[in-house]
Amino acid sequence: MKLHHCVGARSFRPLWALEAIGLPYELAMLPFPPRVHRKDYFAVNPLGTIPAFEDGETRMTESAAICEYLAARHSPGALGVDPGEAEYGRYLNGLHFGEATLTFPQTLVLRYGRFEPPERRSPQVVEDYARWFLSRLKAFGTVLGGRAFLCAGRFTAADISVGYALMLAEFAGLGDRLPDFARAYWEGLKAQPSYGRALAAEARAAGEQGVSTVPSPLGG
Amino acid sequence: MKLHHCVGARSFRPLWALEAIGLPYELAMLPFPPRVHRKDYFAVNPLGTIPAFEDGETRMTESAAICEYLAARHSPGALGVDPGEAEYGRYLNGLHFGEATLTFPQTLVLRYGRFEPPERRSPQVVEDYARWFLSRLKAFGTVLGGRAFLCAGRFTAADISVGYALMLAEFAGLGDRLPDFARAYWEGLKAQPSYGRALAAEARAAGEQGVSTVPSPLGG
Repeated sequence: MKLHHCVGARSFRPLWALEAIGLPYELAMLPFPPRVHRKDYFAVNPLGTIPAFEDGETRMTESAAICEYLAARHSPGALGVDPGEAEYGRYLNGLHFGEATLTFPQTLVLRYGRFEPPERRSPQVVEDYARWFLSRLKAFGTVLGGRAFLCAGRFTAADISVGYALMLAEFAGLGDRLPDFARAYWEGLKAQPSYGRALAAEARAAGEQGVSTVPSPLGG
Repeated sequence: MKLHHCVGARSFRPLWALEAIGLPYELAMLPFPPRVHRKDYFAVNPLGTIPAFEDGETRMTESAAICEYLAARHSPGALGVDPGEAEYGRYLNGLHFGEATLTFPQTLVLRYGRFEPPERRSPQVVEDYARWFLSRLKAFGTVLGGRAFLCAGRFTAADISVGYALMLAEFAGLGDRLPDFARAYWEGLKAQPSYGRALAAEARAAGEQGVSTVPSPLGG
């Protein structure tokens, strides 16, 4: 298995899942954004986005989907939640929610607040989507209900999906605006040994492959 | 099972999946956006977004996740793709891609082109995300490679996820800019009998419940 990754990008999710399960993998580091700095990357992923994941004939580009795939194939009933478990629906919802609802709005905050040239920035859009994110996150507090993990009473791929959105919030300058419950939940996730192993693997690969270790969070 | 739905919104995905599998369900129609017109809806879904889905103790709010849930529980190996099938990874990727990559950018096109009051609209953001959507969609053409269905040689929940993004593109005024392959793929999906049944169920429920049948595509 091979994961194409930029430091701090969404591809951190599958990296974390690989470390949580303990699978062997190759980590290919890229400068950000690869569609600008590494045109040859389009041969790996026609979308030009990060991540790209290869497993035999399988090619995947959606970070939460890769976590789900790895968990279902290699860690059912542990990092993955099985269709027969009572909280299977809650698990799937969390996997999708972490990306579709909690991550995409933050890319607007980053794009129009930091990555676009000054004349194309938009404080209005930045604030619209900072609020959009924080409003959905606040409601997620009701859903989480003080639990340490999102579902099934254990650390699962759904926590990785939502956890990365909180990691990104810190990169995006929204860390000070996170509600207390989100901070406590995120601290608990960071205490998972697999989180530290993933960070270490990322730093080691960046060093070996001569890629900057400064986070490049938009992830394509 | 009960699905909370606005005409033309993302909740069309699980409605389509329910019709494709042939499950009994209750369809609760709401005016759009429910968080403005139906404050009591927050008791059903703390996020205030559409869809909300209830199945016993299970509560879900992510449209693609609900399709995946229904398919895995009630239609494995048919509308759902099993973890043991060769294209399981491709299936999961399509499910997530349809929402996270192809739908969210269109909500920017709608918001800053149509739903915001004139002084808050932004032609720049509308065009940035129209291009963003069309660029990812063009690359999806390479992934699809002329197939009638996204994966496993049959109509699956992944086609429903991506198909709704193409339905939304027509609502969002991007229909004329769709590449030929996307038009052909979408025509093929619309030819599924379950698509017609879902549209008919939506229109019938809207009529019975006194809700406008004008599409309200942002879906919260």
